Amino acid sequence: MNIQIPRGTQDILPGESEIWQFIEAKAQEVCRRYNFREIRTPIFEHTEVFTRTVGDTTDIVQKEMYTFKDRGDRDLTLRPEGTASVARSYVQHKLFGQAAQPTKLFYHGPMFRYERPQSGRMRQFVQFGVEAMGSADPAIDAEVLALVMDIYKEVGITNTKLVLNSLGDKESREAHRQALINHFKPSIHEFCGDCQMRLEKNPLRILDCKKDREHPLMSTAPSILDYLNEESRAYFEQVKAHLDRIGLPYVIDPTLVRGLDYYYHTAFEVMAEGEGFGAITTLCGGGRYDGLVQELGGPSTPGIGFAFSIERLIMALKAENLVSVEEPSIDCYLVALGEEAKSASVELLYKLRQTGIVADKDYLDKKMKGQFKAADRLNAKFTAVLGENELNENRIEVKNMETGEQVSQPLAEFVDYIKRELKGGQAG
Amino acid sequence: MNIQIPRGTQDILPGESEIWQFIEAKAQEVCRRYNFREIRTPIFEHTEVFTRTVGDTTDIVQKEMYTFKDRGDRDLTLRPEGTASVARSYVQHKLFGQAAQPTKLFYHGPMFRYERPQSGRMRQFVQFGVEAMGSADPAIDAEVLALVMDIYKEVGITNTKLVLNSLGDKESREAHRQALINHFKPSIHEFCGDCQMRLEKNPLRILDCKKDREHPLMSTAPSILDYLNEESRAYFEQVKAHLDRIGLPYVIDPTLVRGLDYYYHTAFEVMAEGEGFGAITTLCGGGRYDGLVQELGGPSTPGIGFAFSIERLIMALKAENLVSVEEPSIDCYLVALGEEAKSASVELLYKLRQTGIVADKDYLDKKMKGQFKAADRLNAKFTAVLGENELNENRIEVKNMETGEQVSQPLAEFVDYIKRELKGGQAG
Repeated sequence: MNIQIPRGTQDILPGESEIWQFIEAKAQEVCRRYNFREIRTPIFEHTEVFTRTVGDTTDIVQKEMYTFKDRGDRDLTLRPEGTASVARSYVQHKLFGQAAQPTKLFYHGPMFRYERPQSGRMRQFVQFGVEAMGSADPAIDAEVLALVMDIYKEVGITNTKLVLNSLGDKESREAHRQALINHFKPSIHEFCGDCQMRLEKNPLRILDCKKDREHPLMSTAPSILDYLNEESRAYFEQVKAHLDRIGLPYVIDPTLVRGLDYYYHTAFEVMAEGEGFGAITTLCGGGRYDGLVQELGGPSTPGIGFAFSIERLIMALKAENLVSVEEPSIDCYLVALGEEAKSASVELLYKLRQTGIVADKDYLDKKMKGQFKAADRLNAKFTAVLGENELNENRIEVKNMETGEQVSQPLAEFVDYIKRELKGGQAG
Repeated sequence: MNIQIPRGTQDILPGESEIWQFIEAKAQEVCRRYNFREIRTPIFEHTEVFTRTVGDTTDIVQKEMYTFKDRGDRDLTLRPEGTASVARSYVQHKLFGQAAQPTKLFYHGPMFRYERPQSGRMRQFVQFGVEAMGSADPAIDAEVLALVMDIYKEVGITNTKLVLNSLGDKESREAHRQALINHFKPSIHEFCGDCQMRLEKNPLRILDCKKDREHPLMSTAPSILDYLNEESRAYFEQVKAHLDRIGLPYVIDPTLVRGLDYYYHTAFEVMAEGEGFGAITTLCGGGRYDGLVQELGGPSTPGIGFAFSIERLIMALKAENLVSVEEPSIDCYLVALGEEAKSASVELLYKLRQTGIVADKDYLDKKMKGQFKAADRLNAKFTAVLGENELNENRIEVKNMETGEQVSQPLAEFVDYIKRELKGGQAG
């Protein structure tokens, strides 16, 4: 009986997990610089959190959520994205009442969507995201955009493109909505059933349709940018001016829409431009929203955020050949021969580690040759041999695996010797 | 409509999340020294992974699992613990066939048990654990014990006790099992229904019963240590000898049992001894197991591991008053006055952060006083004021918030100045 991992999920094994650690550490470091702090919310929420915020008509809510009843008959859902949970937490803990505003938060963790698994699209995937809540200053839009681009820069991805749009405010969106309806209505029977449903409910989503994207009316659809009222236009101009000021390149794409009703003004995506990255090129999506916090029982609160999948970021790194999964090295491997030496090596090993040295030994009763092989495999910087003779003489033979240099050390000075040598190696 | 967090789960907010980051970083650092590497498995598994390994008769499987069907009618369960998932992954990826053995892994992440929530017992809780698979050397038992105690030491918990027992091998367990049945059988009607069921199935678990723990037959129950055969006794003696050798204190408790059928030989717990910690004193549980990997379709593989809850570790830290949730400081806060200065500050802020400096500014259009207050609240080391006059003169006023010292700096040299001053401050 061989039980497999659930479809659409993956194990991250040593060799790969170090890449994840690296990316998460870099992303957190950048967030720290920008004064964003971590929030952690549960893996599941009451289903209502998502139906209310992500929207009843979205694919996520209609087809992709992992929803179940717990043993207390609660209707729970594994979170399909992070923003709704953060907004729920923001309301529940009244973060809007804290003195320091805006509330600048980052999160990372697994999200769940029941989709057809394919490269870059898993049923469990990990998102890293930020939310800045409580400010409608265009400068914070620029800050959030700079933050995400800094993360990509820090992890080493170079071929990215920041794509920007404005969805305008309510008035602008309504005008655009009407224009879209007028544009599509006469020929809506040529579109898929989903689009026909979307026409009156949310015509903006027609532009997002995967089935109908080749229809000629798509490319001629009215652009939101032509329907921005003065205020919305001014807001967008300011965001762009800030980006120009800090020298962050971007391109405008008036067809860029965000799936959710709460998005308004700034919308953006980061695209991968590396060769060999394949069909899925969106690395990150984000934008400005309002009404989300209100829908969950809080005050009207403007916010802006983004989320990116770490799986796709790693795909982008690999497409650019920027990931080298090197076996990490260890500082010292202890080779012990004979029962007494083996026992003594347990203590030596402990002492090495107590001083912060990365060390290991054999646990499979291997012969000398096998132990040396293991030391090689672990890329040990030093190998130390303890046999019966050495033990009787209170000495240990230490070999620098890089230079081949071999010295005999008094046992009592061994740990200090390794420590000193490692420091010297770093300095040199 | 105010939607609350699901019962038995918690949000970890800024101020608290930094403690989690600290603990996880320390635990990972210690694992690195011991040459354990990270594995990440999915949040859910096919339910069979747990029914097969955790055991059909356990409370976890019978009462506490979050089990549900996905949209493809798969029977899935949110993982209630980490070992089963790691073993499933070990089999699936044939880690037993890798050259470097034993396979030394660590993991951390949320686990789920539908229990009555109380202090230190949440429905979603985070475990940090390790598994060393593929060696039956008593020295690796000592290594794993040293590792967990090193983690507690590194995070700063001092009042802990390592409690040790041996469950013996199969033969010893069978002899003990028969002795337990003989001991309890005549009076089993005085015990709870669960215990009556356990008598023939798994009498060892009677010793774990919370309801019957005051029954006089509990304290007089036959001790496993009196039933260890020669091999098991020798194994246990070697583990103890290694611990003595490295100077790791422990106490023996022959009533310490582990809930699962697969445990044998070494079993251990780490207990909190700090005052004010309350009723739940077990910080960490672990032990040696066999048969687990086989049950999931792999070869017979001895293993040893432990898991501790980070929630309880934090409770222990707080009970010892070792957690000081300080507001982290930032390096520099930009105070900008007037539209042009505000725009210019966007660029300055970006430049500061690009060099690694932790910096922030106002996004709420506050007056000067409000901006200075915000700087105070963020514990800014430096505050820099940019007004219309300064901007015209290409200068900025920088105040060292600790010394009160104030200097005027050319705008072009401002970022370097802050960088230099921060370096000096660290050195001094």
